[in-house]
Amino acid sequence: MSTPPSHEAQRAELHAEVVVRAGVAAEWELPARHPAALLLTDRNVERVLPPALRALPRHVLAPGELSKTWAELEGVLQALDDHGLDRDGLLVCCGGGVVSDLGGLAAHLHRRGIAWDALPTSVIAQADAALGGKTAINLGPSKNSVGAFHAARRVLVDPSFLESLPEVELRAGFAELLKTAVISGEPLLAATETLSPQGLRSAHPEALDVLRRVIDTKLRLVQADPHDHAERQLLNLGHSFGHAFEALALGSLRHGEAVGLGLLCAARLAHDGGQLEARLRAALLRWDLPVRRAGDLGELLALMSRDKKRRGGALSLVIPEAPGHVELCPGIAPERAAEGLAAVLA
Amino acid sequence: MSTPPSHEAQRAELHAEVVVRAGVAAEWELPARHPAALLLTDRNVERVLPPALRALPRHVLAPGELSKTWAELEGVLQALDDHGLDRDGLLVCCGGGVVSDLGGLAAHLHRRGIAWDALPTSVIAQADAALGGKTAINLGPSKNSVGAFHAARRVLVDPSFLESLPEVELRAGFAELLKTAVISGEPLLAATETLSPQGLRSAHPEALDVLRRVIDTKLRLVQADPHDHAERQLLNLGHSFGHAFEALALGSLRHGEAVGLGLLCAARLAHDGGQLEARLRAALLRWDLPVRRAGDLGELLALMSRDKKRRGGALSLVIPEAPGHVELCPGIAPERAAEGLAAVLA
Repeated sequence: MSTPPSHEAQRAELHAEVVVRAGVAAEWELPARHPAALLLTDRNVERVLPPALRALPRHVLAPGELSKTWAELEGVLQALDDHGLDRDGLLVCCGGGVVSDLGGLAAHLHRRGIAWDALPTSVIAQADAALGGKTAINLGPSKNSVGAFHAARRVLVDPSFLESLPEVELRAGFAELLKTAVISGEPLLAATETLSPQGLRSAHPEALDVLRRVIDTKLRLVQADPHDHAERQLLNLGHSFGHAFEALALGSLRHGEAVGLGLLCAARLAHDGGQLEARLRAALLRWDLPVRRAGDLGELLALMSRDKKRRGGALSLVIPEAPGHVELCPGIAPERAAEGLAAVLA
Repeated sequence: MSTPPSHEAQRAELHAEVVVRAGVAAEWELPARHPAALLLTDRNVERVLPPALRALPRHVLAPGELSKTWAELEGVLQALDDHGLDRDGLLVCCGGGVVSDLGGLAAHLHRRGIAWDALPTSVIAQADAALGGKTAINLGPSKNSVGAFHAARRVLVDPSFLESLPEVELRAGFAELLKTAVISGEPLLAATETLSPQGLRSAHPEALDVLRRVIDTKLRLVQADPHDHAERQLLNLGHSFGHAFEALALGSLRHGEAVGLGLLCAARLAHDGGQLEARLRAALLRWDLPVRRAGDLGELLALMSRDKKRRGGALSLVIPEAPGHVELCPGIAPERAAEGLAAVLA
């Protein structure tokens, strides 16, 4: 009896391949060892699919976070079943973070796990969501509360997709670049501060360099701690605060916009006299990203205490003491979190 | 920053503990490292819960395979969220195979994986379903098509639960014992043939010995191949045929009854002159289990070709050439499968 390559091995080793290059999406082809594939995409991305992907049977989502639901996940699983994909099947996810979060989870669950390829099309998906194997959907207001670890076999990051990305999406993505740059340290943060929306959209060499270094930073943290018990949690910088704003906004705030607000809240808790907070606020303003937001303090704190990052009932927050010096701080009291929220509450 | 024990480690090493002993369920207590727990059970088992489990908040399913659905899985995940279980939480699954299949999957998905304990209460769950980390639900007629690998941390097999098991459930469970005994070899098969329903129900020492050896056989195969690419597939003996009968019956055939029919179909394909088939038929008849079944041949074959055990489009069947000599045979033609079905088709 022959033993096919284990899909667990691929999961443990994370991605077999991550390529960052303009034009790489157009080179995608169905690998010989996968007799069947299904494409998952959304109605916006469907208009700019590379030819090889257009040839695949497809399942198309409505664009946006509101598709990251239990019902849509069932729809993808049903499509995989209807198309007769067995354990050798491949799910190809071409789209933003919603497509890779939802699609990766469907790939994980279909017949107890099939391989998937990621072709991320938004800044957030290219810099963050499609990398590292975290997949999830939202359960009602509980963001990403249902999920699994299942890394895409290949991640093909093609900046050409950014040319047709809506302006607001491009701008929101900048906040995720900024987040990882703060974690990385002064050199990458300084480089990120010089980015312009037009440079990012046209994949200017300096922008592509920032994107590559952000991706490397994320992959290093993920490799050190694939299942999110230690170092990887630093990537939650700005997210505990951000998720609360996002949940409260019920779709009217983009994920990246929420992360930008969250960054300011987290920076407010640093003991640096407000230096980093001021730099981050200036950077967000240059990209026309929100730096103030109305919201009920009690509701926001309640949402944060429901967030999955708390452990053992206590609130854990990631605090950026300085670029490159970011710390996971467990046992934060609500009063302290409220101080952070004051950085942006209108 | 401290590193909590990885739940991946526990998954990879399979169960941290498997105990087979009368009275072990009554000794269950909430481990110190899990601050919160939720009990998953069904309405039948709810009446015979040990005191420590009665003290837990609980989510109760309707008994039976029809609860193994996408909607019920969402219900369990919602309950885990409503009870505020975080990544340190524990799901305790006390019930038959449906409870452990569904509950194990919910534990896998809640906040990307929490620990779970299994207290299996039926013969099938004690001998098979709760062991080895396969979890799943059905997606419409596609049996176990959505699932994951997530082993219970502890499996407490308490034969005392069998005292109150409905007679038909007890009898159906015998088919799973018989299946594993055929895989194990002549000594365990001979011992299993001497079992009586009364002996099993009262956990007679000889019955307990058979149960222990069946469990050991399963765990050995699972340990050799946790993710079901090779040796573990032998445990599918009788299941490709059985699942087809089960799907066609829409709930009127128990899983164990279907496995019994499937065993006869698989044995029909052996080149032993019908010896093993005759022994298995005699054993099933002694336990009042069905050995004939009406069904449309074309429908059954279509269901088998949709079964998740096929790989690369071909039908793979497990054929018992003799006790202890069971083989996974890929590339089986539908005509050959039809010969197997003839063993039981009325």
